[in-house]
Amino acid sequence: MEHELRIATIGTSAICERFLDAVAKTEGVCLAGCYSRALDRAKDFAQKHGAELAFDDLAELASSPDVDAVYIASPNALHGPQAKQLIASGKHVLVEKAFASNAAEAVEVFAAAKAAGLIAMEAMRNLYDPGFAKIEQNLDRLGTIRQATFRFSKITSRMARLLAGERVSQFDPLLSEGALMDIGIYTMEPAIAIFGQPKRVLAAGICMSVPGEPLDSAYGKIDLAGEVLLDYGDKVVNLSYGKVTDDLIPSQIQGETATLTIGALPNCSQLKLVTHVDAGMAYGTVGGAEEELPVVIPENDMVYELSFFRDAVAGKAEALKRVHQFQQVTCDALTTMDEARRQLGVRFPADK
Amino acid sequence: MEHELRIATIGTSAICERFLDAVAKTEGVCLAGCYSRALDRAKDFAQKHGAELAFDDLAELASSPDVDAVYIASPNALHGPQAKQLIASGKHVLVEKAFASNAAEAVEVFAAAKAAGLIAMEAMRNLYDPGFAKIEQNLDRLGTIRQATFRFSKITSRMARLLAGERVSQFDPLLSEGALMDIGIYTMEPAIAIFGQPKRVLAAGICMSVPGEPLDSAYGKIDLAGEVLLDYGDKVVNLSYGKVTDDLIPSQIQGETATLTIGALPNCSQLKLVTHVDAGMAYGTVGGAEEELPVVIPENDMVYELSFFRDAVAGKAEALKRVHQFQQVTCDALTTMDEARRQLGVRFPADK
Repeated sequence: MEHELRIATIGTSAICERFLDAVAKTEGVCLAGCYSRALDRAKDFAQKHGAELAFDDLAELASSPDVDAVYIASPNALHGPQAKQLIASGKHVLVEKAFASNAAEAVEVFAAAKAAGLIAMEAMRNLYDPGFAKIEQNLDRLGTIRQATFRFSKITSRMARLLAGERVSQFDPLLSEGALMDIGIYTMEPAIAIFGQPKRVLAAGICMSVPGEPLDSAYGKIDLAGEVLLDYGDKVVNLSYGKVTDDLIPSQIQGETATLTIGALPNCSQLKLVTHVDAGMAYGTVGGAEEELPVVIPENDMVYELSFFRDAVAGKAEALKRVHQFQQVTCDALTTMDEARRQLGVRFPADK
Repeated sequence: MEHELRIATIGTSAICERFLDAVAKTEGVCLAGCYSRALDRAKDFAQKHGAELAFDDLAELASSPDVDAVYIASPNALHGPQAKQLIASGKHVLVEKAFASNAAEAVEVFAAAKAAGLIAMEAMRNLYDPGFAKIEQNLDRLGTIRQATFRFSKITSRMARLLAGERVSQFDPLLSEGALMDIGIYTMEPAIAIFGQPKRVLAAGICMSVPGEPLDSAYGKIDLAGEVLLDYGDKVVNLSYGKVTDDLIPSQIQGETATLTIGALPNCSQLKLVTHVDAGMAYGTVGGAEEELPVVIPENDMVYELSFFRDAVAGKAEALKRVHQFQQVTCDALTTMDEARRQLGVRFPADK
């Protein structure tokens, strides 16, 4: 690619602001334009971030010759349809998590991108963070892995509105949102990336009725938090996630030889490996020799996923390999999330 | 009671040694005698610990006028039958966890004790530890509780024998053993004591074939580790336990207002309460104001369960109230464990 990768954005939320901060910090990419449903908002956002173009018409963005790729940070329900429309017009797409409403939709988007020779990639930041590669590199040291827990729960700043009975976008099934899609995915994708598809999924969750949704609606239920077991036969992985409590303990992968703790799963940092030492009879867990696995992580770790996207678009083999690997993870994770939602009774209009 | 409570022991293992250390440190109790299947072993053990009597005949122990109560630390499968025999002869019983092979057997033992005006109590040390009461006292500060994880896994010192294909008592279904019964119970009973019976149980585990057990045996499978979800509808509790990996992260109870972490679940110590502070938009879990909840725990915390047992036998109201509360916990926990074992396919001869 001779020029910088010219990226346009869909969305004007905090995550989009953060993405543009990453764009500013990353070589070889630049902001070309901004889309919002309201043109004034698109113009304000574009001006604020130094972009030339503003759009309120997705078809116009899709056909713009001044845009190579689009970062999609709209509500989840729009990810798949918008990605397909943009791919059809020759744009690469970097799509915020969750990549699509369900696995079937994700498969369609990836197939369309592949057929068009374009990159479609989920902006799943903790997979592209260097700490994830560090975890992968150390798995062999754990011995046979038997148990793991991947954890991310934090009280949403929208809690007060939620408890007051307000309909909140982040908990709206019509937008393919809810705790599993929004925060559970940070626990699901690393698990699937490391261990693959489980043989069996067991899910239990805290759900609420969706304010304003009719009693007979198929979309009357949304999840606030959940616990999932991924059963692999020879190991079991627990996912714990939610938006109504704070989880303050590390994630953990437990092998027969050593245990790896992950202090901060959202950016795969604070890694510690503890090798078992046989202390004979003991009344608690003794552990063993501790080793920090250093990971340097910048304040805004979205620079990593953006760099992989840029390099994959440029056809660099290493980035393409990783992106293809994680495309499969996206699909497999959504397959597992589809099953978890089925068990929880959380349905989206996009579900067949 | 005019004299000290004269206790005899069944078992000569490390846990029995530890119990006798607690007897030596506790007022109002003394060691009267020791039982083992081999008289020489019983005599050696009695002599070592300064007891007058040694038994290799349970009927003889049961009818001894010099024994008021018996601490039963035999394999789990013998707990119920031995307790019933001793109760029938007028002895109080303090029974190591697991109290019985299953809920039905536990109910029978408690009913027999009640009818005879005797105390039957499970030596579930982390319920009687002062840290458990401290947890109970602070639950109201957490707001609505939504999630919790109760954790205890440690690599057994018998791992090498197990991996070599040896039949190990602690993993023998004919003895009603296995990971859930032996170590999972440390996670199950606090959960049941705090939250009661769940509406639904979901269990997944790591199981192995029992060495030497015929292929068509109903008792050919035993669990090495497991993950259980207790679904209460408005909250979900995860239990994580096992004997083939080391778990190095705290247990945790997560409420909408605050989160309580329990650094050491086996003796309910290292308690920390963190009250949520709204930090607005955040990319990780922020937490909030930390408060240590001090718990002083002696090296041998079996003194607590022993003191409750002594006081309950003496008819002291406060101890009786707690013992009755935890008798129900024993039964409810075993009911849930029965269901978990059913899902895991781990059966005991004592199961109907």
